[in-house]
Amino acid sequence: MAQTINDEILLQFIQQVFSTFDLTQRDAQICAENLVLADLRGIPSHGVARLKRYVDGMKNGTILPLARPRVIQDHPCTAAVDGCAGLGQIVGHFASQLAIDKASTSGVGVVTVRNSNHYGIAGYYSQMMLEAGLLGISMTNSAPLVVPTFGRDMIIGTNPISLTAPAKRNKPFFLDMATSVVPRGKLEVYDRLGKTMPEGWAVDELGRVTGDAANVLKNMVARAGGGILPLGGAGESLSGYKGYGLAVLVDILCGVLSGGAYADLVDSKGPQGEHQPANVAHFFMALKIENFVDRNTFCEKMDDLIDRLKNSARAKDEPRIFIHGEKEQERYEKHKREGVPLDDKTVQMLQTIGRERGVTVPF
Amino acid sequence: MAQTINDEILLQFIQQVFSTFDLTQRDAQICAENLVLADLRGIPSHGVARLKRYVDGMKNGTILPLARPRVIQDHPCTAAVDGCAGLGQIVGHFASQLAIDKASTSGVGVVTVRNSNHYGIAGYYSQMMLEAGLLGISMTNSAPLVVPTFGRDMIIGTNPISLTAPAKRNKPFFLDMATSVVPRGKLEVYDRLGKTMPEGWAVDELGRVTGDAANVLKNMVARAGGGILPLGGAGESLSGYKGYGLAVLVDILCGVLSGGAYADLVDSKGPQGEHQPANVAHFFMALKIENFVDRNTFCEKMDDLIDRLKNSARAKDEPRIFIHGEKEQERYEKHKREGVPLDDKTVQMLQTIGRERGVTVPF
Repeated sequence: MAQTINDEILLQFIQQVFSTFDLTQRDAQICAENLVLADLRGIPSHGVARLKRYVDGMKNGTILPLARPRVIQDHPCTAAVDGCAGLGQIVGHFASQLAIDKASTSGVGVVTVRNSNHYGIAGYYSQMMLEAGLLGISMTNSAPLVVPTFGRDMIIGTNPISLTAPAKRNKPFFLDMATSVVPRGKLEVYDRLGKTMPEGWAVDELGRVTGDAANVLKNMVARAGGGILPLGGAGESLSGYKGYGLAVLVDILCGVLSGGAYADLVDSKGPQGEHQPANVAHFFMALKIENFVDRNTFCEKMDDLIDRLKNSARAKDEPRIFIHGEKEQERYEKHKREGVPLDDKTVQMLQTIGRERGVTVPF
Repeated sequence: MAQTINDEILLQFIQQVFSTFDLTQRDAQICAENLVLADLRGIPSHGVARLKRYVDGMKNGTILPLARPRVIQDHPCTAAVDGCAGLGQIVGHFASQLAIDKASTSGVGVVTVRNSNHYGIAGYYSQMMLEAGLLGISMTNSAPLVVPTFGRDMIIGTNPISLTAPAKRNKPFFLDMATSVVPRGKLEVYDRLGKTMPEGWAVDELGRVTGDAANVLKNMVARAGGGILPLGGAGESLSGYKGYGLAVLVDILCGVLSGGAYADLVDSKGPQGEHQPANVAHFFMALKIENFVDRNTFCEKMDDLIDRLKNSARAKDEPRIFIHGEKEQERYEKHKREGVPLDDKTVQMLQTIGRERGVTVPF
C-alpha cells in the first residue's frame, strides 16, 4: 500500500518540521531537500522515512540543530571542518560549498569533516559540485553494519562513494554506491517477504554465509555477531576483500584524515544502548575540469564513453545496459510528474511527527 | 617448477635490458624496480613476466622509450601531463613526483596523464607518495577486458585503484585492487589446472555466466564476446553494477579528465590486430596529512582502525583477519630473504631476451 505525495508539498512539510527546531529557513530547506531528493531518485532508505531518526536525534541531544560547523584548518585547496555534532545535511552542505569555492579558485578543493551526523545520500553533495560545473566526489563513514573479510563482527559502515561528472548529450554520470554488497534495507525487504537472500549478502552470528534475513537482522540489532558483507561477498573467491578495502579507504579519508571517529566508533548508540553523538565523518573533493582539459572536450568524451558502454552488445535476454544515475534520473522524472510514493508506515510516521511538532500535515 | 632468483640480481638484469634501449640509468632503474617490486610483493602478473611485452612495444614502436613526458597544464595543486607514448613506468614516476611536489607545497597534488603505456602495479606510485610522507592515490585505465553489467563485450579495463596511508605500530594500509572481480591471470591459472571457475568471474560469448576458463580466454583473444566481470559479478543480485561503476569512475578520472583515451580506445592492438599506441591514462593524487590533522594523531588513529579490524571476532574456522597490504608485505619480506620465485616459462623468456639484447643472464 503506497500513497503518492507531490514532492513540493512533501518538501514544505519536512522543512516546517525542521523549522520547529529553530533552524534558519535556509538550513531547514537544505535538510528537507536532501531527504526529498533521495525519495525522488528512488532511494527511499535515505528519504523522508528517516525523518524520525533526525527528529529523535535532535530531541535526545545527539544532534545539535543549531550547531555551526567550525573550520579548524584552512588552506587555499584544503580545509578541515568540525561539524560540532550538527545536522549532517547542514554540515555536509557547508563543507561541500567550501570545496566548491576552493576548486573554483584553486582547481581543487578537498574538505574533511569530523563530528557530524548522518548526512543523507552521498550524491546530494556531489550533485552540488556538478551543478557548480565541477567534478564532484563525496564520501562518508557510517555506523558499523559490515563485517571485514573472514570476520563476524560489524566493524565498518556501508561507507558510500559518490562521483558525478557532466556529459553533453547524455545525462551526467552519477555514481552513488555503498561499498557493502547491499544496504540493510534490502535485508529488511527480504525479511518482510520471507524470501531467502542470495548467497553473499550477509553472514550469521558465526560468520557463515546465510540466506536467513530475519536472523541476521535480529543479530544485528542485538550485536550478537554477523552482519552485511562487503562488495564481493564472503571470503576471497569473489574478492570480498576488495569491497572491504574500499570501505576502509572511505574510512581513512573520512574518519582518520579528519581526525574524527572511524570503524565502530561511529555510532549513535553506546555499549549499553545509551545515546551518544554519532561522530560521523565525511570527505568532499571538487575538481575544476578546466585545470586538466577544456570543458567541451571533457563533456564530449563523457558522451562517447557513455555511448560505448550503453550501445555495446547486450548479454542474452537482457534488454538494456545502464549507466550510473540513469535509473535514478528516470525515477526522479516520474516522481516529479506523478508524486513521491511513500508506504503507509512512513506516512503514519510523518503524520505523528507533524502532530507532535505542531505542523499541519497536508496529506 | 619454480626457480627463485635474488631480487638484486633480477633487478640488475632487468635494468640492463631496459638500458639497451638507450634509457638513462635512472629511467632503466625505475622500470626495473617497478617490475621487481610486483614480484617481491607476490603479484607476478605485473612483474618481470611482463618484460617481453615492454620489449616488444619498444621494438614495434608503440612504446617510445626515449619520449619525455610533457606538462600541458600546470597550476599550484594540479597538472595535466602528456606521456607522449613513453614507458608507463617513467611517465608514472614523473607524474607521481609532480603530485608529491605539489602536495608538499600546496597540500594537494592532482595530476592526470594521457598517452602513456601500461605502468605496472598501481601501488608503485602510491608507495612513492607514502615514502614522501603523504597519503597517496594512484589509478590507471587499461585495455578492455571487462564487460559492463548486462553486457557481453569487453569495453572497460580492470582499472585498478591504489591507496596508501601510513600507520605507526602497524604496517601501512596498502590497497592495490583491480575493479574487476579477478584479473585475467586468475582465469589462466584455472585454465592450466582444468578447474571450473566460481560463478561470477566471467561470461561467455553470449554474456552468460560460465565456469569454463578456456572458452572465455579463447573468446577474449578472438574478441568473440564475453570477458571478465566487474567486482560484484553478473547482473544486479550481488551488485555487479558497483564494480562496473568503480571501473567507470577510474576511467573518468584517468581517461576523460586527462583528455586522453578511455574504454575500448585504450588498446595496443587495432581492429585488425595491428600495433598502435596503447594510449593508457593515469590519475595520481597526493594529500598532505598535516593540512587536515597532525601526523601523529593520524598514525595513531590508523593503528587503532587496523587493530579494531584485525582483532575483531573471526568467522568460524577462519584463522586470521587481514588488513590490505599485509599479505603482500609478508611475501615481500620472504622474497627478499629467499629470492623471487619465477616459473620456468618466465625464466626462459628472460633468458631469450637477455641473449637477444646482448645482456649477460646471471641465472
